[in-house]
Parts: sequence; C-alpha cells; structure tokens
Amino acid sequence: MAGSSFGKIFKISTFGESHGIAIGGVIDGAPANFELNFEMIQAELDRRKPGQSAIVTQRKESDTVQFLSGIFEGKTTGAPIGFIIPNENQKSKDYEHLKDTFRPSHADFTYQNKFGIRDYKGGGRSSARETACRVVAGAIAKQMLQSIGIQFSTYVDQIGLIRFDSSDFFELNVIESNLVRCPNSKIAVEMENLVREIRKDGDTIGGAIRCVVTAVPIGLGEPVFDKLHAELGKAMLSINAVKGFEIGSGFDAIAMRGSQHNDSLNVDHSTKTNHSGGIQGGISNGMPISFRVAFKPVATLMQKQATINSKGDEIELEGKGRHDACVVPRAVAIVESMAAITILDFYLRNKSIHL
Amino acid sequence: MAGSSFGKIFKISTFGESHGIAIGGVIDGAPANFELNFEMIQAELDRRKPGQSAIVTQRKESDTVQFLSGIFEGKTTGAPIGFIIPNENQKSKDYEHLKDTFRPSHADFTYQNKFGIRDYKGGGRSSARETACRVVAGAIAKQMLQSIGIQFSTYVDQIGLIRFDSSDFFELNVIESNLVRCPNSKIAVEMENLVREIRKDGDTIGGAIRCVVTAVPIGLGEPVFDKLHAELGKAMLSINAVKGFEIGSGFDAIAMRGSQHNDSLNVDHSTKTNHSGGIQGGISNGMPISFRVAFKPVATLMQKQATINSKGDEIELEGKGRHDACVVPRAVAIVESMAAITILDFYLRNKSIHL
Amino acid sequence: MAGSSFGKIFKISTFGESHGIAIGGVIDGAPANFELNFEMIQAELDRRKPGQSAIVTQRKESDTVQFLSGIFEGKTTGAPIGFIIPNENQKSKDYEHLKDTFRPSHADFTYQNKFGIRDYKGGGRSSARETACRVVAGAIAKQMLQSIGIQFSTYVDQIGLIRFDSSDFFELNVIESNLVRCPNSKIAVEMENLVREIRKDGDTIGGAIRCVVTAVPIGLGEPVFDKLHAELGKAMLSINAVKGFEIGSGFDAIAMRGSQHNDSLNVDHSTKTNHSGGIQGGISNGMPISFRVAFKPVATLMQKQATINSKGDEIELEGKGRHDACVVPRAVAIVESMAAITILDFYLRNKSIHL
Amino acid sequence: MAGSSFGKIFKISTFGESHGIAIGGVIDGAPANFELNFEMIQAELDRRKPGQSAIVTQRKESDTVQFLSGIFEGKTTGAPIGFIIPNENQKSKDYEHLKDTFRPSHADFTYQNKFGIRDYKGGGRSSARETACRVVAGAIAKQMLQSIGIQFSTYVDQIGLIRFDSSDFFELNVIESNLVRCPNSKIAVEMENLVREIRKDGDTIGGAIRCVVTAVPIGLGEPVFDKLHAELGKAMLSINAVKGFEIGSGFDAIAMRGSQHNDSLNVDHSTKTNHSGGIQGGISNGMPISFRVAFKPVATLMQKQATINSKGDEIELEGKGRHDACVVPRAVAIVESMAAITILDFYLRNKSIHL
Repeated sequence: MAGSSFGKIFKISTFGESHGIAIGGVIDGAPANFELNFEMIQAELDRRKPGQSAIVTQRKESDTVQFLSGIFEGKTTGAPIGFIIPNENQKSKDYEHLKDTFRPSHADFTYQNKFGIRDYKGGGRSSARETACRVVAGAIAKQMLQSIGIQFSTYVDQIGLIRFDSSDFFELNVIESNLVRCPNSKIAVEMENLVREIRKDGDTIGGAIRCVVTAVPIGLGEPVFDKLHAELGKAMLSINAVKGFEIGSGFDAIAMRGSQHNDSLNVDHSTKTNHSGGIQGGISNGMPISFRVAFKPVATLMQKQATINSKGDEIELEGKGRHDACVVPRAVAIVESMAAITILDFYLRNKSIHL
Repeated sequence: MAGSSFGKIFKISTFGESHGIAIGGVIDGAPANFELNFEMIQAELDRRKPGQSAIVTQRKESDTVQFLSGIFEGKTTGAPIGFIIPNENQKSKDYEHLKDTFRPSHADFTYQNKFGIRDYKGGGRSSARETACRVVAGAIAKQMLQSIGIQFSTYVDQIGLIRFDSSDFFELNVIESNLVRCPNSKIAVEMENLVREIRKDGDTIGGAIRCVVTAVPIGLGEPVFDKLHAELGKAMLSINAVKGFEIGSGFDAIAMRGSQHNDSLNVDHSTKTNHSGGIQGGISNGMPISFRVAFKPVATLMQKQATINSKGDEIELEGKGRHDACVVPRAVAIVESMAAITILDFYLRNKSIHL
Repeated sequence: MAGSSFGKIFKISTFGESHGIAIGGVIDGAPANFELNFEMIQAELDRRKPGQSAIVTQRKESDTVQFLSGIFEGKTTGAPIGFIIPNENQKSKDYEHLKDTFRPSHADFTYQNKFGIRDYKGGGRSSARETACRVVAGAIAKQMLQSIGIQFSTYVDQIGLIRFDSSDFFELNVIESNLVRCPNSKIAVEMENLVREIRKDGDTIGGAIRCVVTAVPIGLGEPVFDKLHAELGKAMLSINAVKGFEIGSGFDAIAMRGSQHNDSLNVDHSTKTNHSGGIQGGISNGMPISFRVAFKPVATLMQKQATINSKGDEIELEGKGRHDACVVPRAVAIVESMAAITILDFYLRNKSIHL
Repeated sequence: MAGSSFGKIFKISTFGESHGIAIGGVIDGAPANFELNFEMIQAELDRRKPGQSAIVTQRKESDTVQFLSGIFEGKTTGAPIGFIIPNENQKSKDYEHLKDTFRPSHADFTYQNKFGIRDYKGGGRSSARETACRVVAGAIAKQMLQSIGIQFSTYVDQIGLIRFDSSDFFELNVIESNLVRCPNSKIAVEMENLVREIRKDGDTIGGAIRCVVTAVPIGLGEPVFDKLHAELGKAMLSINAVKGFEIGSGFDAIAMRGSQHNDSLNVDHSTKTNHSGGIQGGISNGMPISFRVAFKPVATLMQKQATINSKGDEIELEGKGRHDACVVPRAVAIVESMAAITILDFYLRNKSIHL
C-alpha cells in the first residue's frame, strides 16, 4: 500500500524519478478562488534547486514548474492542481555502473528487495529530486498561510559541530544573505568554510535546520493521534536524510524539572517561556511553533567505498557524479514547504470542528 | 476533522475520558484466525497501569480490559475488536477546582479554545489515561509480530542527566528487574533515587526511552511520505509528553562525516554499523530498528504555581492529586505498543506490493 | 484491509456481533459544543428495533444505547463518542445447528472462506443487527442537520408489486401512522396485508424505500469521485439486503430524451423539474435530494430449504428462529440514518473549500 | 475536502480540465514488477475516445497517453505511475458564450456556487473528458486481473426503450462487432437506428450498460461499509450521467419472494441461480459478478433551450458544439475500467486478511 500522498484536506501526491521524463505532483484540496503568485513559487524552487551556488551540487536543472490544471485566470478553482517539472539533465549513462551496485546507506538494497525491481538511474524514486514537488505545493500553501498572517522563518542551525543555536524569528532577507542560510553572518562564514573543506575531502557532513512559525491561530492539531507536532514530525522525517525531530525544548527536556519546564500563562494567554514550542496537548496555543530537524551527512561520497553488488560480491564503489557536501542549505526550502503543507492542512481540518 | 485513529490496515481508534464511565477502542483490520493470549494483554496493561510501584502515581485502577467483539472462541475473526476499560476511580469532585483553571503546560487552554467546551475532570480526553487503549492494541500487535519472529526491547535510557546510553537488545526480564525499567541495575538504582528525590520536592523530571526491534523483515515502509521511521516518529510524538524522536544515529548524525556515517554492507546484506537504525530510504533493511524518544517532565506538580483562570485573572494553582514524578518507567509499555502497531501496519501494507 | 468505518470528517465506526456481549460504535468528528437530544436518539432506535409491531421479527431487544465518552453535560465535546448497545437476547444455543451450515443467500459461505473462521451465532458480524449502531450515529447527524434546517422524509415506496410511487415530502407523523411506514394509508393497508400473508407462508418479500431530503445547502458533494449521489449510493448499498440505488429519475432516465429530462432553471435557481434528484455534477443544487433504494426479500425463511454444509454434503435447512417477512418497514430508520451521516459528512467537507 | 482519488491500495487520482493543456493522473499502489501491455492501454482509450464512429461526438482527440514515471524497462516499479493525455482540441473560443450561462442539467450552476469560480470552457473539470484518465488506470488494472484469470464482459444493455436484457458473458470481439457495443447484432441495429434518429432531432437519449465479471476469487469485499457491491456502486455513480446502479436481481428483487430469490448452493459451492450477482454479505462468492448501470440522456442538446445566466436573467441557449446523442457506446470502456479498478483494489485489500 503505497505512500506517495501527504495531507488529509490539502493533499499533495508526488510522482517521478530522478532521471525520468519529468517529476510532478497533484495538489488536491487547495482552497478555491485564491490568486496565485507564480514568481514566488519559482523563487522557492530556486532556493532548493541544484547548481544555485558554489557550495551545492552542480547538476544543472532549471526546475521550471509547469501547471496543467486547477488554475483558471491565475486563480485556484478548487479542482486538483496537476503540475510537472521536466528533468533536463538525464545523463542516464552516468549511472550504468550502479545497475547492480548496492551503495552504502542508500536505498538501493531496500528498494530492490521490497519491489523486486529498481530504477537505478540517479536513485530513481528514492532520489531527493522528488522534494522539488513538495516545494511547489509548499510554496502554494505558504502563500495561502501568509495571506492570513502566518509567517515562516527557516534557517540552518548547525553544520557539523558549528551551531548557531537560536530559536528566534529571522526575516527571509537575513536568512538568504549567505550561501548556507544561517542568519548569523559570522557563524555562516564558519559553516561555509567547513563545507568547502569537507567538499575538498570528497566527504560530506550533517546539519540541522530550525523552523519557526509565528501567528499560527490557536486550535490547530487534532487529538489524540494527529497532534500537530506529531504530523510535523512525520512531515520532516519523510524528507530524505532526516534522522531526528524535536519540538520546543525537545531532547533538552529530558534533563529538565517540571518546575523549570512548565510554561506559565500571562493574562493575554501568551506564555512566559515557550518550552512547549507553540503546541500543548497537540494543539497550537498561539505562541511561535518552533522545531528542529537533524540531517545525516549525504551518503554519496567522492571517495572510494567498499560495498557489495546484487550478486553478493564485494566491490569497490568509485566516487563520481555531482553531489552536495552538505544538504542543509538547500533543504531549508523543503523543511519550510513541509511545514506549510502541514499547517495549512490542519488549518483546513480545524474548519469542521463546529457545525 | 478528528484524529482519533492510527494505522491504515491494522487500525486502532480510541475513545474515552480520564473520568468518564470507561475508555475504550476499536481495532479494525486485525488479521483473522489468530489465537490471542489474553494474559499477555493484561500483563502489558499492568506494565503501564498506575499504582504499580512506589515510584509512580498512586491512582488506583485495575485497568481490566473487556473485549466486546471480533473474537470467537479465543481467536480473531477479522471483524473489528471493540473493547472497554472501565474507569474505577472517578473522583470527579477532586477536579472541581480545575473547572475554570488553565494549568501551565497542560491542554486546558488549547482544548477550551479549540472546541469551545472542555471536560475538565482529570484532563478529560487529553489525559494520558487514553494510552491504556493503545497498550491493548499494541499487545495484540506484538503477539502477532512475535509469532513471526519479531522481538521488541524497550527500556528507559535516561532520566534527568543520568543516561544509560545503549542501543543493545535486552530481554524483558532484565528490563523488568527494577522499578525504572533500565536494563543496567546500577544505573537503575541511581535513576530510582533521583525519581524519589524529585518526588519529595513535589517536582517532576524528564526522561528518554530506547526501543530496539529485531528480525523485522526487509521491505517494510512506503516511499515517499510513509517512510517507516516517519510513521514511527509520528506514533511516538503522538504520545503525551513526548518532545523528540530520533532514529539510528539521530541528532548525533549532525556532527558526523559521511565517510564515518555510511553503513557498509556485508555479503550477507547486514551492515557493519547501524547508523541507519535499520531503515534506509524509509524501508527496513533487516538490521535492528533502533530509535529514542524524549519525554518532558510531567506538567502536574505538587507545588504551588502561578497561572490564570478562564476569565483571565491571575490565580495560584495548588499542587494536589496523584501524579508521576517521572513518566518514563510507565511509558515503556506505551512506546513499545505504538512501535508494534506501526510495524504490524507496515507489515500488512507490504503484502500488496506484488500481485 | 477492513471496512468498518464510514465518512471522512463525521466518521462512524461500528463493531459487534449479533450474539456477542454488545454491539457498539465510535463517532469521530462530530461537531463540538452541540447539545444532544437523547430521547430523539432512542426514538430512532425504536423505529428500527425488533419486536416493535406485529409484522416484524419478535426477537426481544430494548436496544438501549449507552454513551461512554465524548459528551459533557449533555453536549458534544469534539472528542470521539463511544457507545454500546448491549445484546440482551443472546440465545446462542438456537444457532448451534448453523455451525456447519451454509445458508442460501446468507454470508455464511463467504465469511468462512474469506476469514477462515466465522462467528455463526445469528449471523455474527454479517447480521443486520449492526445497523442499530448506524442509527445512533444517524440520529445524531440528523439532529445536527435539522438544527440548520435540513429535513428528511423517508418512507416505504413499495412492497412486492404494491407501489406507492411518490417522491413527495411527507411529515414524520404521516409516515409513522401505520406499521409499514407508507404515507398513503390505503396503500399501507394493502402492504400490511401482503406482509401478513407472506409471513403466514413462512416466506419473505422485497421492497423499496424512498428518501427525500429538503433544504440541503447548495454545494455539497466533491468532484469527481466523491459525488454526493455516489457516496449516498455506497451508503445505501452497504445496508444489508440492498440490491439497487437510483437518484432522481434513476432507471427511468434510460428511456428519456434529453429535451424531456433536462431540468430548466428558474430565475430563483430552482428547477422546473427535478430529474436530477437535487444533485448536478455530483453537487447539491438546492432542490430536494430524492433517491430510491431496492431491498431483496430476507434470506431467512420459515420453510425448509436444500443447502450444503461446510463438508460439502447436501442437507436440509429447517426454518426456525424469529425473522422479518419484509425488512423495509424497519429499514426506513437505517436508510434515513445513512443519508444523514452522508450529508453531514459532506456538509463538513464543504467547509474547507475556501481559505 | 476534495474527492479526486478512488481506491485505497490501487489508487487513482485524476486532474485536468476539458480544455486545459492536458488531463492526467497518478496511479499509486500498482503492484510492482508487472510487465505492461501499452497497446492494450491505448486500445481501451480508443474505445472511449470521441470521433471513433459515426454515432458519437466528432470532437477530434487522439487521446494518446504519455507515461512519466513508475515504469522501468516496461515494468511497473511500485512507484507512482504519473501520466498525461494532452488536450489537442482546445477551441476555447467556442465556449466564450457559456461564460455566464447556466446550462440546464449541467454542473455550471453548482460549480459556480460551490467554488465561487468556474472554468467554463467545455465544462472544465465537470466534463466527461476526465474519464479518459480512469480508462488508463482501468486498462492497467484489467491487465493485472486478466493475468490471474479474471475476465470482463461489458456491453450496452439498453438504449431508450430498446433493451437487450441479458446478463450473459460475451467475448470482446462480439461486443465490438457493432458501433453501439451490444452483443446482439439485430438489437444493435435497432439501437443504432434509434441513436441516428435522435441525433437528427438534435436530441439525446438515455441507456444502460451491463457488466459481467467472471472468475473473481472468493473473498473480495470488506464488511460492513466497504461491501464489494457498495464500492462498485459508488464507482459507477461517480461516472458522469449515471443515475442508477443495481447488483444481481437489483430492482427486480423488490417484487420477489425469498423462496424464489434465494440462491441454492451446489456441492461445488456454485449457486443454482445468481440473484446475488456474485456477492453475498458484501463479499464475492465466486459466481459471476453482474451489475447494471443507468445513464441519463446527455444534457447538451442541438436544440434551443430556455435557461438563465449568472445574473439571473432568462436567456435562450443555442445548441452548438460536438456532442454525443447517446453516451453508452463510449461509456462501456469507462464502466469496465471503474469495475477493474475497484476489483483490483479489493483483491489487494484482501491480501492483508491473514498474518
């Protein structure tokens, strides 16, 4: 039973492989009669696209989205929005050598065993290229949420051991002021230098992204299984390379006492602290939603690695192709997109609470 | 749009409030013709139930499950399994003082605002009492998985700053050999002492639980949104008081290099390391699934706290009632139950991959 | 993958067997803060219950519903509403002779083959007793819809060859003025006489029910698969013994010309005719929704029938037990309930069409 | 909450408007590693496409499907199958006059009111052009089912008052031997003549389609709401212009006695009659599944009609454009496709009944 859809009311379904004709998706349940800003959608895709700067993969893709349906004279009609992003760079011969290879910490082995067949070109369906479709849906969701005042601030919090360690809200221009998308320019330089160094080694490095969402209406999230942070957690963990998710105080809460952790209420219903991360009992309380996502280092290295092939022979894997030394600068757009999709979905779900 | 169900094929829906007549649930999609072990189900409930030891809440509940349907001569029939757990301890007058109070870091304020009405008795629907129903479903799921060789090892990894820090598999009797359910008896004593001390202060403390699942068949998990660890993450984050989830290397992956993090394959398809936590590309690879869950300190304190009432007045909240100083010893059964429900669901989902 | 739930936002899940401890259900997604009329719920159950009149089965069941959750001080809280209806009449020994028998046109053979196990007592899960739970949910849905002006008129249109043949709206007291629930008292007498005659023969007879729903808001129904009449059709066809469904002109449309069938619009947006049955393009247009449901004759006869047992031997089935000669008088409450559940669900679904 | 998807495991989502760039769809959950016959898919599209014969609409569309994903070296991979069918004939100016017109018995009025916006070109999303996407998914489903022995026979049973009245199985070449797709060549001639006559009048006429499916495995269908015939009913009622559905004896069952209607079992588990239509208790019993679908006359006439515009003025609608005088000859492929999608979905759902 396949799992290519996300969301219950604002629902995105994606399709497409890394080196097929096109990737694409369908957004079903987008609110009707909303005027779309197409430049903004493309701008979001550009934040995720390969080749955007010196520190990311140099695969060349313009990542131009083509909308096929659900839009009439610039407005959503309530009908499903189908779209495709053509794959321009289909150098499939580059991947012939991977036909029978199970790369370490990739999905080659698991896809082959699960499905009995595998599109090995560039990782096929398991490639992070699929996330471009999430960004299309996320950009639409974000526009809609922005129109009701909700604001997003998503940035790189950590690369390797270099941590920014903030949960403040930063404006987009501050975040976009450097290649790594860390709002602190000094730390950003350190991060960039680290990425360049790692890249020179043909190696990769992990990282973390912080997402802060403000002005979220009180009441989003559905007890007891579909708590808002539970679905946000699933959304983030469904992104390639993500290994962990924490909301509010997160893992730091383990060592805290209740008397220290409890968020006291002010008379205006705000709280003096925000260890809850804007969510209590699974429901937004009006404080900023704040969570952090951990990414592992990219599995594709520009180094030789020992592995096995599909016959079970030990082989040596050459490091070639075009890949990211660190995924988090590009993943900022993906995290923000999945957050927007999730929050819009819960915003719409909340509309049926009363008759 | 409510969210009281979990799972797509093996689906559990729960209902009931902390101080209502009964809590209960319906399991739809349990495989048919499976002989149930009812003692084991009750034993799992006992691991979660209040009053089980000196270090947990002294609320008295026998937590006896009564099955109403879906079982014939001891076997599942494929029909939905309805069940109830009567609430024996309904001292509702204990809660009259909370009628108009918004307790810090509880769901009082968010439920009141979302629904416009709130069952304030003992937290009503937001109480962790609901998780007893998850344990019933989880015990059934676990039996089924055990019958095909899958094994679970779930234990307390950390309380406050005292960390066991293991991802090994431990047998149930080792875990159950002490009140805190930490497999290391020396660390367990330290943890117990800490909980007693915190309790004496009328305070509470956070903790973490590790879950290790072995012999999971290769192939469970569905690209791209319903990755196995994404759904496990949602399952865990839907448990009361959970603030974080990490799979395999988790947050440690941030500071690792790819050359260090990649799990090399052996010719038997096992991997030399298991930073992936048994899941690659969202699909189980046959290695032990290993994840860690962070719990915040319980919000109910036996101390006075400043808060507000529903009119917006500042008031002082008395600390009274019967509560846990640390939730993780009892939450072990809940984490394991949600893991079993999730894995059984994906096991069944995987059956339709081929014609 | 089980199918014991109906509805997407207002969702009813049922459980229970004919001769188990209890049947019951969970309603998830009922709008919050709505004051329930419990007498009306019981009154609806009484319209469906056995033993209500001389022309229906004499099985004795009070069919008293007991609510367990989701209601606080008489109002819905937004939490799932769990309920049970105890089975008082569990004469299971009556059914020992059916243990190995496959009754003609019952579900004995198909359940046994599908699940490999079967609760044979009174049909177990396949018994129409399950529909009592639908009536509980339907009564709640109907109250809610009535509060916004929507009205239901459901009645017996045909028994055997005796047809009322109307699609008018009749008040409840008119429908309830006779045992067969046909609004025309003269035709009702004929129908009653037919049922008594059929009953005397130990035989059964089919029938049809008409349902008319007025003041349905324009806009309910979701293109393209979840058309309002498609879901109404599924709802009706899921009721035991239903063999056909038609909306508006229905099967009569086959022989009609477009120039005759098209519903011309008046300037007030009503239509001059209503061959569409209140639904165009799958969406309600404000005209009365009108559909008709065909029921087969009850399969249980008070006559001897040739059949086979589970070993494949030919055997003779004795006619005994307590059954209905015609199901439609009691099924009126079930049809109306499923209509109310469906329409409320679409009413709530329609709330998220706009931001 | 949108409804553009059908099926739970084999799931088809469609998108696209009549006069947009393309229509298309995504099939998620198609069994992996299945070799597709692409000629057969196109052949099915050709059975539905406009312009195929003298008695159908002369709109020119080649209806060529282009697959974008989910297929590798001719086989399904288990990844979602995305596809598009470009709209070649986008004479949008033809429709300018409909911009503010509410055509009788079309979806113009309901779409405008529900969504507040409407793509009026050729009916936009409400056009039956969408069903071409269902045929793509249906052709794939049918191939898969044929590979396990299941056979389909779908044909025109009635046009106007001319009824074939059979529930036998006919081979495809017999059905395809005439333009109306009625297996009886003599009746087919009568039907053709009627359609030509109606066409000459600028009018339209209703019809009915019979579908017979043989060798369906015992056990498909899920109690209690997702009965096989309930889902088939929904599938059929979701097709444009369908007004009724009946399974087995259908509406004829109303006038039958149980002693006549009951299907006696033979020792080989077949039944002597098949009033049940191959389904008992919602579950297939191995006998041929047989159902009948009623279609209303097409709403677009080549005659003048009185109607209103969006301002509420009475206007006269000219009859122009290219349309079908009777939809059933082309709808045969759609009915068969929806039947195949539904049955494959239940076939896959049935795989998780046992551990």
